[in-house]
Amino acid sequence: MLTVLSVTEAAEKILHSTDARPVAESVGLDGAVGRVLAAPLTITADLPPFPRSSMDGYAVAARDTYGAAESLPALLTVAGEVPMGGVPPAALAPGQAMRIATGGMLPEGSDAVVMVEHTEILDAMTVAVGRPVAPGENIVARGEDLRAGQTVLPAGHRLRARDLAVLAALGLVRVAVTRRPRVAIISTGDELVPPEQDPAPGQIRDVNTALLTALVQQAGGEAVPLGIVPDREEAFFAVLRRTAGCDCVILSGGSSAGARDLTAAVIDRFGRPGVLFHGVSMRPGKPFIFGVADTVPYFGLSGNPTSALVGFIVLVRPLLWKLSGSTERQLFIPVRVERSLPSAGGREDYYRAQVFEQEGELWARPLPGQAGLLSTMLHGNALLRIQEHCEGVEAGEKAAVLLL
Amino acid sequence: MLTVLSVTEAAEKILHSTDARPVAESVGLDGAVGRVLAAPLTITADLPPFPRSSMDGYAVAARDTYGAAESLPALLTVAGEVPMGGVPPAALAPGQAMRIATGGMLPEGSDAVVMVEHTEILDAMTVAVGRPVAPGENIVARGEDLRAGQTVLPAGHRLRARDLAVLAALGLVRVAVTRRPRVAIISTGDELVPPEQDPAPGQIRDVNTALLTALVQQAGGEAVPLGIVPDREEAFFAVLRRTAGCDCVILSGGSSAGARDLTAAVIDRFGRPGVLFHGVSMRPGKPFIFGVADTVPYFGLSGNPTSALVGFIVLVRPLLWKLSGSTERQLFIPVRVERSLPSAGGREDYYRAQVFEQEGELWARPLPGQAGLLSTMLHGNALLRIQEHCEGVEAGEKAAVLLL
Repeated sequence: MLTVLSVTEAAEKILHSTDARPVAESVGLDGAVGRVLAAPLTITADLPPFPRSSMDGYAVAARDTYGAAESLPALLTVAGEVPMGGVPPAALAPGQAMRIATGGMLPEGSDAVVMVEHTEILDAMTVAVGRPVAPGENIVARGEDLRAGQTVLPAGHRLRARDLAVLAALGLVRVAVTRRPRVAIISTGDELVPPEQDPAPGQIRDVNTALLTALVQQAGGEAVPLGIVPDREEAFFAVLRRTAGCDCVILSGGSSAGARDLTAAVIDRFGRPGVLFHGVSMRPGKPFIFGVADTVPYFGLSGNPTSALVGFIVLVRPLLWKLSGSTERQLFIPVRVERSLPSAGGREDYYRAQVFEQEGELWARPLPGQAGLLSTMLHGNALLRIQEHCEGVEAGEKAAVLLL
Repeated sequence: MLTVLSVTEAAEKILHSTDARPVAESVGLDGAVGRVLAAPLTITADLPPFPRSSMDGYAVAARDTYGAAESLPALLTVAGEVPMGGVPPAALAPGQAMRIATGGMLPEGSDAVVMVEHTEILDAMTVAVGRPVAPGENIVARGEDLRAGQTVLPAGHRLRARDLAVLAALGLVRVAVTRRPRVAIISTGDELVPPEQDPAPGQIRDVNTALLTALVQQAGGEAVPLGIVPDREEAFFAVLRRTAGCDCVILSGGSSAGARDLTAAVIDRFGRPGVLFHGVSMRPGKPFIFGVADTVPYFGLSGNPTSALVGFIVLVRPLLWKLSGSTERQLFIPVRVERSLPSAGGREDYYRAQVFEQEGELWARPLPGQAGLLSTMLHGNALLRIQEHCEGVEAGEKAAVLLL
């Protein structure tokens, strides 16, 4: 039953374990950042909706400026001013110019703007233009920025602050996004008490519920913390029945072999097909259980918080991205390693590391610390990966990090 | 009055414009991620609170295993089992061993754990130990992870998911963090209507409120959007009076020179010392106004959303970090540039770029697009900086990016 997979095999198996399609829901602009588009974003109207000036100056017909030079300016009749936020007072007749500010609507009959710096006011009615402009110069044509019907963001795109500007410009004050995957979080272990409780001798406080709740939220999921379960089969089954409606279940704990076996056995009996693998050749995080019960993916992470963290980042988070319909992938950033690191071939190692920039290069300083200690987690801003085909890296060599 | 500063000078002036101290408030663990510690985190109790086993096996006195070998095992009497979450049933007498699981509390009289893999059960009362252990082996001593009194995170640290594990372990279910800086957001311009309204000819929808609200929130601030103000002095003064209680004010708009001058004039008259500079030698983002009125910092950003975005990331965000008491700094990541980019010396340029990894190196592909267009903002995951002392970069040369 103890099938140990490589990280690559495990990642593949996890991602292919479900073909659940995310459900769409509608959110307002103020709740849209970080959510995932449920459908491609198609532009609904030409932007800008009218030809706009991109400079302060005079709207003109370009042909009226041909041949103009400082020594021989084109003299145009000033036909009023375009009001900001309004329509031009009239169409432009040949030989006329109209004052216009950046963002103003071009009058009919004009096809370019002369920058104010290239003009001189001769009298109340006349402006001298000292340079020619080409048609289209210093204007943004209707639809030049974004054209109605054009698709600009694919389904699965996670909305960023700047995408909201485009939604606002189109008047799309509500947007269809995928529902956040609901992720049940369960801590297991007879020795655990909730953080708000004083532990008796032999007991310790549950830290993984707080850790995994925050990690799930950062990965775009909705965390459903279900508390602490003692290492008894009936208790496991009782809490698993409370996961109904969740899209994914994360159990953590079971630091002893017996407790891990209990987690695996319960997942296995809770639904079909049950446990898919038990153990991944990575460090930390080797005691990693994955199964599917009645189409819902189940993770059994180590109770050791550092192992749970690494297991989550490397193998759970990509599935949460998939469950939310997101197309994002892990970004491994190349770095040089400050000191040599050993690694057993055939195993993927993740060291905590501090990444910093020095003279135009990114370096990673591996940090000491045992996986079993909380203090190890406090330091560093990255996980440094030594791939399974490497037997360590030498100081100055390249490796890759996931920024935390 | 138009004082154009370098980006470095502007950044310095902005950061030194205020010495406001952030106010502390208390939040629960579920709202703590992303908040900034108001005081250093000092460990309140030894962790673990008792000596724990880090392996499944037998608690022993190390001296009872000296000289043990597979061919000549040490035979120890099994004195029961340590219950998970409880205290050992008795102290260990010489020559005894007690079954213990990972995380179990060591009995008195023991100082090491023999891994189960190195033992063999001979009968109900006797276990054979095939390898010696040293004192302390396979155990975590009381306080070995974190020791009471030790300071592990400084004030100004922004809490990460993994820090919650340590807070939970200590029972610190509430934590003192700094209050989020309240940031007033005002869009100015006669041509603007709110996103939910259909613009009349000559009007466009306000996009900067949505953009800046999201950017302020991502920078750890509390956004206070105050809507759209027409380009009239009385209207500006009226809305600025509504910013009472805010720690910072961001105006954006004023694409025309006249509107920019109005913004500067109003900031200047609203309080002392008024406008500190008007214009930064960067592109985009040159029309950048900064002032202080009665200790509150005021930004006047371009109405052009790309300029507003770059101005915010480069010059506003660091001040919001400071106002929230955070010690974080911009992280410029070194990359190679895929194609040559021109830049005028004496000006800092920010190109939108797509950063990607190729054969162990990070590359940035500069993206085309005019700063005035919304479509420019949709693409890319980074801002590529060309510093003011550079006259462009050649393809393959190094530059630095801020990831967006």
